[in-house]
Amino acid sequence: MVDIATRVHNHKWKIDPIVRSLIDTDFYKLLMCQSIFRNHPDTQVTFSLINRTKSVRLAELVDEGELREQLDYARSLRLARGESTWLRGNTFYGKRQMFRSDFMEWFEGFQLPPYHLEKRDGQYELTFEGKWHEVMLWEIPALAILMELRGRAVLDRMGKFELQVLYARAMTRVWEKIEALRELPDLKIADFGTRRRHSFLWQDWCVQAMLEGLGDSAKGGAFTGTSNCLIAMRRDIEAVGTNAHELPMVYAALSETDETLRRAPYKVLADWHEEHEGNLRIILPDTYGTKGFLELAPDWLAGWTGIRIDSGDPASGAEDAIAWWRARGEDPRDKLVIFSDGLTVDKIRELHAQFSGRVKVSFGWGTLLTNDFRKLVPDDGLAPFSLVCKAISANGRPTVKLSDNPEKAMGPEAEIARYKRVFGVGDQQAFDVVV
Amino acid sequence: MVDIATRVHNHKWKIDPIVRSLIDTDFYKLLMCQSIFRNHPDTQVTFSLINRTKSVRLAELVDEGELREQLDYARSLRLARGESTWLRGNTFYGKRQMFRSDFMEWFEGFQLPPYHLEKRDGQYELTFEGKWHEVMLWEIPALAILMELRGRAVLDRMGKFELQVLYARAMTRVWEKIEALRELPDLKIADFGTRRRHSFLWQDWCVQAMLEGLGDSAKGGAFTGTSNCLIAMRRDIEAVGTNAHELPMVYAALSETDETLRRAPYKVLADWHEEHEGNLRIILPDTYGTKGFLELAPDWLAGWTGIRIDSGDPASGAEDAIAWWRARGEDPRDKLVIFSDGLTVDKIRELHAQFSGRVKVSFGWGTLLTNDFRKLVPDDGLAPFSLVCKAISANGRPTVKLSDNPEKAMGPEAEIARYKRVFGVGDQQAFDVVV
Repeated sequence: MVDIATRVHNHKWKIDPIVRSLIDTDFYKLLMCQSIFRNHPDTQVTFSLINRTKSVRLAELVDEGELREQLDYARSLRLARGESTWLRGNTFYGKRQMFRSDFMEWFEGFQLPPYHLEKRDGQYELTFEGKWHEVMLWEIPALAILMELRGRAVLDRMGKFELQVLYARAMTRVWEKIEALRELPDLKIADFGTRRRHSFLWQDWCVQAMLEGLGDSAKGGAFTGTSNCLIAMRRDIEAVGTNAHELPMVYAALSETDETLRRAPYKVLADWHEEHEGNLRIILPDTYGTKGFLELAPDWLAGWTGIRIDSGDPASGAEDAIAWWRARGEDPRDKLVIFSDGLTVDKIRELHAQFSGRVKVSFGWGTLLTNDFRKLVPDDGLAPFSLVCKAISANGRPTVKLSDNPEKAMGPEAEIARYKRVFGVGDQQAFDVVV
Repeated sequence: MVDIATRVHNHKWKIDPIVRSLIDTDFYKLLMCQSIFRNHPDTQVTFSLINRTKSVRLAELVDEGELREQLDYARSLRLARGESTWLRGNTFYGKRQMFRSDFMEWFEGFQLPPYHLEKRDGQYELTFEGKWHEVMLWEIPALAILMELRGRAVLDRMGKFELQVLYARAMTRVWEKIEALRELPDLKIADFGTRRRHSFLWQDWCVQAMLEGLGDSAKGGAFTGTSNCLIAMRRDIEAVGTNAHELPMVYAALSETDETLRRAPYKVLADWHEEHEGNLRIILPDTYGTKGFLELAPDWLAGWTGIRIDSGDPASGAEDAIAWWRARGEDPRDKLVIFSDGLTVDKIRELHAQFSGRVKVSFGWGTLLTNDFRKLVPDDGLAPFSLVCKAISANGRPTVKLSDNPEKAMGPEAEIARYKRVFGVGDQQAFDVVV
């Protein structure tokens, strides 16, 4: 067991890498990467860091030299032999050889492409331009590096024992959450907290605590795994995750006409349908509004295993999905609903109570599992904040996201208006974006 | 920084010694040992373990084999060269060569004498018979071993993360106490918690936390040191403590007549007066009742530096001392009052408020600093309890202690009655003995 406080105290090492492996990333990035590698190998995409919490002035908190050092270190990483063996030989979602040979050969030679970094208005402009399947692998390391450097800047001012007590408090908090979750019968929950984690060691601790406290779902417990491949490999648990908004966003940006734009989200899932089955067939419906997406969805999509609710009011999202399955002649009790947005223990308890028995319920717990240091330091300097790294253009065309929460919308205004018209999105209810 | 939870988790090592040095003991034991070595080298004394908390059935909780193993290990210890150098070369209470050469030569050859162990009524009868200055050195190791073995028995049933969270909670608790104490202006407080500590590593952690949180009093902080010599040596802080009840108890037991009995407590201090000065001249008045002790005290005793209040109501004890100093023409503001019984943060705050400015106030914080795991495990299995190791006879005559709390009295009934008569102790108010 690592003494995290000691390690943090020793952060004045020449470099204590934040990202220490190319598979210290979310499993779904690799799945999507493989899909893009096959279907869109020549698409040029720009990813960009976006700090939605403007009050956190990252460029004032985080030293540019340290940031470059960490980004450069990440660029030096190559897939290790054991990691490659694990990706090639492991069973994911019950399937062997999830990653095809051509993809693995490419990945074994891969290094993260160059980045572009500038300071502007107290924030960092950090962008990655290049082939989609290459730049997209920057998303998680870039986020993890910035989140952790911001944390380190705050921790640097603390004494050895203050640090140890900080971690003692944070551990106690995580454990109390786990104790509360233990009370929920037939709970299924996974760690989705890589991108905005406090640190790698901390995420690893949280995963192990979940494993001990809730039990491995492979052995009848409630903990279904982690989205983090490195931790999944090291702790010998399931790596989980399916797909994300970047697929419909880029597919949509590449559409020439309103009609192809309207069909883009379904084209994404049609491609996915060819490649994956079972629990990997999870709909992510909210990129351009869940309601319209479900109404216009082709019938074959109702046959998919489940849905992931990632914005808006989660209960209404799930009720909409249930109504939609019923309307399409599907039994919701056979369907999986994965909640993954803004989860707290109370929210999990509430959704679990509302939906258990009506659908198969599962949770992907992110930032408030792996980065809940709220109110533990003066000025709440470790509170999580809403940092994302998104595809902002594809082949020179801007991307747009609407989501079920206007606070999470992104893209040029005129394009947002066009997308709203094309996807029939009217007024939306706003929800605070904490993380 | 040691990861305590990991160490505890690994306690299945062949032997993880509880007492790992002959100076892992209270400083005052060594001071008293030297005094006895000089003044009473031939006195035969029996020390005995006494568990005042009968509900904690030690012989059912602690395996006899493990107990013998730890006691035997303690018997194998010899003073290490660095320890001897430290005792010989260090400055204690501003004085060089506190320990004389003849004593040091004897101590360098010393090993703990044999013990006698039996089970009776769910408790261990553990006694040490021999020369006073030899058997008296068993007191602290015997207590520490039994306290820690009881803790280990409870911890053995816990998982790795449960353990880590247990320590996280306990650390948070200690730190919150320190944060509260930080608010008290001109506080002076030392660690007196060796004998009933949770464990050596934990005491060491608590001392370091006090040092970081309150600051070293040598540099203007509130933390004045630790009674534990090994920790004082390793952490380079003051070793503190003066004398204890065993001196008047044995001197009293050796008295042939009521008259010599009555004078015994003053004889102790007269011997001490010859050997020590300054801050080592601290009266411990309660062995046979503080009130009578002060009334009958010789005038020279009022010239001593201070008093230690170790039983009864501490505020009345201190008020009695103040009145006594005034009556003897001393200015209480020049006097030191050390509170060392049953201290909690609230009690410290209260006594500090009542006596600051009127006398020099200081605190010797014991069990609730180094062993506050109350309510942190099921059935409160780690709650501290009242275990002592006392001289029960000297040259075949029973010892008696009355104290300012009848709950702490000990000795044969007839002898207690005699002592009460000789020392003029009437009805006493009883106080719960937590530790």
